Amino acid sequence: MQLHLLTWQEVEKYLTHSNGIIIPIGSTEQHGPTGLIGTDAICAEKIAQGVGENTGAIVAPTINVGMALHHTAFPGTISLRPTTLILYIQDYLTSLFKAGFKKFFFINGHGGNIATVKASFSQFYDHLDSMNFANSEQVKCKIANWFMGREVYQLAKKLYGDEEGSHATPSEVALTQFVYPDTIKSAPLDKSVATGHPIYGAKNFRECYPDGRMGSNPALATPEHGKQFYELAVKELTASYQDFISINN
Amino acid sequence: MQLHLLTWQEVEKYLTHSNGIIIPIGSTEQHGPTGLIGTDAICAEKIAQGVGENTGAIVAPTINVGMALHHTAFPGTISLRPTTLILYIQDYLTSLFKAGFKKFFFINGHGGNIATVKASFSQFYDHLDSMNFANSEQVKCKIANWFMGREVYQLAKKLYGDEEGSHATPSEVALTQFVYPDTIKSAPLDKSVATGHPIYGAKNFRECYPDGRMGSNPALATPEHGKQFYELAVKELTASYQDFISINN
Amino acid sequence: MQLHLLTWQEVEKYLTHSNGIIIPIGSTEQHGPTGLIGTDAICAEKIAQGVGENTGAIVAPTINVGMALHHTAFPGTISLRPTTLILYIQDYLTSLFKAGFKKFFFINGHGGNIATVKASFSQFYDHLDSMNFANSEQVKCKIANWFMGREVYQLAKKLYGDEEGSHATPSEVALTQFVYPDTIKSAPLDKSVATGHPIYGAKNFRECYPDGRMGSNPALATPEHGKQFYELAVKELTASYQDFISINN
Amino acid sequence: MQLHLLTWQEVEKYLTHSNGIIIPIGSTEQHGPTGLIGTDAICAEKIAQGVGENTGAIVAPTINVGMALHHTAFPGTISLRPTTLILYIQDYLTSLFKAGFKKFFFINGHGGNIATVKASFSQFYDHLDSMNFANSEQVKCKIANWFMGREVYQLAKKLYGDEEGSHATPSEVALTQFVYPDTIKSAPLDKSVATGHPIYGAKNFRECYPDGRMGSNPALATPEHGKQFYELAVKELTASYQDFISINN
Amino acid sequence: MQLHLLTWQEVEKYLTHSNGIIIPIGSTEQHGPTGLIGTDAICAEKIAQGVGENTGAIVAPTINVGMALHHTAFPGTISLRPTTLILYIQDYLTSLFKAGFKKFFFINGHGGNIATVKASFSQFYDHLDSMNFANSEQVKCKIANWFMGREVYQLAKKLYGDEEGSHATPSEVALTQFVYPDTIKSAPLDKSVATGHPIYGAKNFRECYPDGRMGSNPALATPEHGKQFYELAVKELTASYQDFISINN
Amino acid sequence: MQLHLLTWQEVEKYLTHSNGIIIPIGSTEQHGPTGLIGTDAICAEKIAQGVGENTGAIVAPTINVGMALHHTAFPGTISLRPTTLILYIQDYLTSLFKAGFKKFFFINGHGGNIATVKASFSQFYDHLDSMNFANSEQVKCKIANWFMGREVYQLAKKLYGDEEGSHATPSEVALTQFVYPDTIKSAPLDKSVATGHPIYGAKNFRECYPDGRMGSNPALATPEHGKQFYELAVKELTASYQDFISINN
Repeated sequence: MQLHLLTWQEVEKYLTHSNGIIIPIGSTEQHGPTGLIGTDAICAEKIAQGVGENTGAIVAPTINVGMALHHTAFPGTISLRPTTLILYIQDYLTSLFKAGFKKFFFINGHGGNIATVKASFSQFYDHLDSMNFANSEQVKCKIANWFMGREVYQLAKKLYGDEEGSHATPSEVALTQFVYPDTIKSAPLDKSVATGHPIYGAKNFRECYPDGRMGSNPALATPEHGKQFYELAVKELTASYQDFISINN
Repeated sequence: MQLHLLTWQEVEKYLTHSNGIIIPIGSTEQHGPTGLIGTDAICAEKIAQGVGENTGAIVAPTINVGMALHHTAFPGTISLRPTTLILYIQDYLTSLFKAGFKKFFFINGHGGNIATVKASFSQFYDHLDSMNFANSEQVKCKIANWFMGREVYQLAKKLYGDEEGSHATPSEVALTQFVYPDTIKSAPLDKSVATGHPIYGAKNFRECYPDGRMGSNPALATPEHGKQFYELAVKELTASYQDFISINN
Repeated sequence: MQLHLLTWQEVEKYLTHSNGIIIPIGSTEQHGPTGLIGTDAICAEKIAQGVGENTGAIVAPTINVGMALHHTAFPGTISLRPTTLILYIQDYLTSLFKAGFKKFFFINGHGGNIATVKASFSQFYDHLDSMNFANSEQVKCKIANWFMGREVYQLAKKLYGDEEGSHATPSEVALTQFVYPDTIKSAPLDKSVATGHPIYGAKNFRECYPDGRMGSNPALATPEHGKQFYELAVKELTASYQDFISINN
Repeated sequence: MQLHLLTWQEVEKYLTHSNGIIIPIGSTEQHGPTGLIGTDAICAEKIAQGVGENTGAIVAPTINVGMALHHTAFPGTISLRPTTLILYIQDYLTSLFKAGFKKFFFINGHGGNIATVKASFSQFYDHLDSMNFANSEQVKCKIANWFMGREVYQLAKKLYGDEEGSHATPSEVALTQFVYPDTIKSAPLDKSVATGHPIYGAKNFRECYPDGRMGSNPALATPEHGKQFYELAVKELTASYQDFISINN
Repeated sequence: MQLHLLTWQEVEKYLTHSNGIIIPIGSTEQHGPTGLIGTDAICAEKIAQGVGENTGAIVAPTINVGMALHHTAFPGTISLRPTTLILYIQDYLTSLFKAGFKKFFFINGHGGNIATVKASFSQFYDHLDSMNFANSEQVKCKIANWFMGREVYQLAKKLYGDEEGSHATPSEVALTQFVYPDTIKSAPLDKSVATGHPIYGAKNFRECYPDGRMGSNPALATPEHGKQFYELAVKELTASYQDFISINN
Repeated sequence: MQLHLLTWQEVEKYLTHSNGIIIPIGSTEQHGPTGLIGTDAICAEKIAQGVGENTGAIVAPTINVGMALHHTAFPGTISLRPTTLILYIQDYLTSLFKAGFKKFFFINGHGGNIATVKASFSQFYDHLDSMNFANSEQVKCKIANWFMGREVYQLAKKLYGDEEGSHATPSEVALTQFVYPDTIKSAPLDKSVATGHPIYGAKNFRECYPDGRMGSNPALATPEHGKQFYELAVKELTASYQDFISINN
């Protein structure tokens, strides 16, 4: 169930039997010459909907702009600064908490979000605690990165080996091809692709990775692969959500 | 064209002939017993895509959470505080500006966003100016509220008269029915509906408007009406975008 | 009664029978070649004092610097950024709320303040709610723009027609002439005056409106007109304050 | 010359021969049973106008709400938090700096402002430096506390001895009586008055100083004394402003 | 060389041949019944000094309070909120950058810092970029966690196996015993120790981990072990610093 | 007792008989050609430890970076902006307050910190009050500047007369020589030293005070003097802490 397609009375009813919610978070950033700018949001949203169907959980609106400052030297990238994203998540979760939600399960499509999202969780717990909100000690947040699931990872290695790379990867590109089969891009891709440079500022990033890929060969992606990734990710995160929602501590 | 479905190289090419972009902004908030929580985002996004098709403009990712603090006493509502939304929009637009975009056309689906979005524009112009960004004096932002277009407004009056109301209106509900014909909700609606109370804080709002409607009768909505509203809004905002993009001052 | 001319014990006594307060808000900004930089604050303050006399309400100190970023390319303008003004109003109202005030009636002299002041109200309600302040749900804020009152508006149209314009208007200039009859300025005014340009950043504004006027002919102003505007505005806002203070919801 | 009573063209002309400006800063806070809540702003504004007349300097609008958090347990007090006041002063001065002002002379009426105003100056210099504003190294800010001038201080000691105290003092009350001879308050004043307690939070302050006075006997004040204080303060600060404006380093 | 023990002229000279600096960052937080509250700062500082000696690099003052909000239900813990730490690091690094430092090597003693420190780096790069600071694209930041070095990790596993745990570990306790051999604590330690609970808010953390340890047996620590850990960490991080400082991209 | 060398259980026990804590605060800034960059932190920390030994009070970790923006044109200086330091102190003290500490005694080594630290105290009291924290009205903060103690000041005058100056003073340099007798620096010092210039921004400061000293002759310092200053400062601040901790109001 997507929160956007419910009424407030349906949410009120849902809260009588569950206090969990799934929040997809992606990014709006370059993904190499053939990857969609919305790749991370598209993957997170699609998988979140799958997990929502399996579990009956509500899926909140996708956070489609994240922390991608290092990609901002490529046109089309939109990024929040970490402090802005922290405030954004605090407001977002505080609204839901006031309504009765207590377990927030983020499905994340972008490695660059992880640090700031984790910092946001710390800030949010402290915010609730300092505000003396009742029952705030029951609140739990979790970030689950679909691309780091064990089976997803193994499939990527099996299909692409080292050509999976770490950005604009064939696995994420494949997943977007599965979602948008009519929007498969083609563009010349250099055989040799930059890899292994640490990530610093935006200009440095573009110098190091001139076409935006990080060690990846997205030309290997197919919609069929995408379907496999989708199904594995949904399977793994369904289990993860069910675990999360059932814990008492 | 949706930004999320483009590559960075396509954006780079686009920027050689246009510096305009369309940004849909909605909200995630209660819309009465039968209105979808995502109503404002759904309408803004759909209309923005229509305008994008007509004009060839890029449509950026939908800002799906806005300023809806007064609705937060109803479950399912998610709101940013105004200061957070101002920072969010500043970061969002600064990223696009650095890439070369200069004309930002917001298509808005929520009256409660207007004040904060206008404040955001002021803050953004000043930010660019203080940072000494080159060409920042060419930047222009505009907010266009689809529901306030002349023809849209007249159609609503013609179809619904006073029962249009001012929140959870049949016109916006109709538009979501057109977009999601399989998600039409039904719920009992009191004949008498609260109207005319000024808006203060969230608790007061819920006391004044106990089912979330403000003077409206969304039971009058039909998907066919929705189609009409969609087409009129796209027509009006297409013209508005073309005007905006062509001005020199 | 001006708050500045009371003692704390007088305020304590006042609070036993009223929880309303009037807050004048203006701006410090250019008003064309003959308008005073303090025009908006002068008008708001004078009218607020008149309303205070009529109603027995306390008038708080004038917020004399507002949101005028678009005028900052003209010397003499002083502006807050919207986020600063929001924090300023939050602190200002929180102090008064802690003492027992609950109804805050802003008398505003500057159109550019409206968006940010409205955003401030939303932020303030949420602040009180999140802080768990007792009785915070009773707090109500209202912004009343003296220049938008029905009778004021009609008089301006009658006296000046289209030459009223929308900034450095003869009506507001007249009102300052009534307050400061010894400070009536004269300067050459071009017959043709810029009009109709949308407002973007500060540099663009000055390019569009080179002498600071927006479609107005302030040479039509007289102190006698000013007296009329003053009296009408006080009459209209007295009624508005009394309505505001008497409402239960 | 008051900035509020000038036109932008007059300011533009002024800037061709001076880059100095006087900024009165007061507070809105309890001043004991007989002192006006606006005492600090009234004194600062009046003295600033006198110094402005002597020196031909522009006097900016009075900052009438300052840092008075420790007085907020008394009704009628309005205070900014230090961080808000720092942002306020930064915006205020940045606007003036962009127009060409470089020497900012604060005339202060409230001891509680000093720490935050000094912190604001540091923040402002750094802001200009980090923004790479041209000529920012020429900017100079000074805070002059009228009540700490040598001759003012001596007169207070001569007239009142220990009964001058340190808040709601007869000297500042006298000055407001000189400015507002028709608003002289009377109320019972305990012979014994609290003194010597350090200042901590607002509730503690009110417990320590139950009627708001700190060791003072404002019953000694007269409008004639007020005139003397006014004249001495204007004399001392005129000299101080002239020194300030003439320095090269 | 410790920055605190240098003069500014020595720093000026140093900058003619190096633009690198080492910044120890720890935390002030409970470390179980026998671990020192300063454990993380003590370890980071000591190791940083060793690396500084090996490499001739300047060691900046230790950031001794970090992100430890989840430990704040235990007395003695001091934590910054993530947004505060991000601003702190931004100011800290901006000062050093303005003097000519460009390569910032953090030696970290606390896992809970990692997310926020990484977010701080992103914010800092963007800050420099937006401010148009010259040469800002050359800036590079790295966080090196001494306890995650390969050899350190292997030694901990060899000495303690699973009893290493993940907080208040024998390895870090040993290192503090090596630094402060006269401050070795003893206290009863339950045989069974909590382990495996995810980290949420502060109250939940204390419920899950009632004595503050996370799966560890710090009773195994000895000062001799601490010496081994120290030497290995210095060796590993010396190499890491030298790599970092020599890279061009 | 240093907090860093205690366990949380020892802190818990301490809180059963005392709610006071000592917090050393210094700075990281140039101190002329022969003064250590860490002078202010070194002095504050050493004296705080002495006072802690005399009184049995816990000494918290040294705040080693303070408000030194005016020194940032000299390499090696690190400064927070005032707003950052205010947030830092708020977080720092809030953590301690939640554990039960209520009396916060800052031992300060840097004049430039005073304004911002005082502003921080105001902000902190208000924060506790607004958050409705229980017992927050009992919280008291005090800043004690070791160099302003009566006997310390007299000794400096006796030993150095006018050559004490006001920055990079022989007294503080002597104290660091006592602490670090192996780190005594020598460098050429001009006979004539700048003095008397007011402090504005960083670039101006360096122009006025080209070698960083303000009217001082640190060549007069000796470690023996340092011992005397240390002992006097500890004696004076021990008495001051005991007074502070014993007061009820």
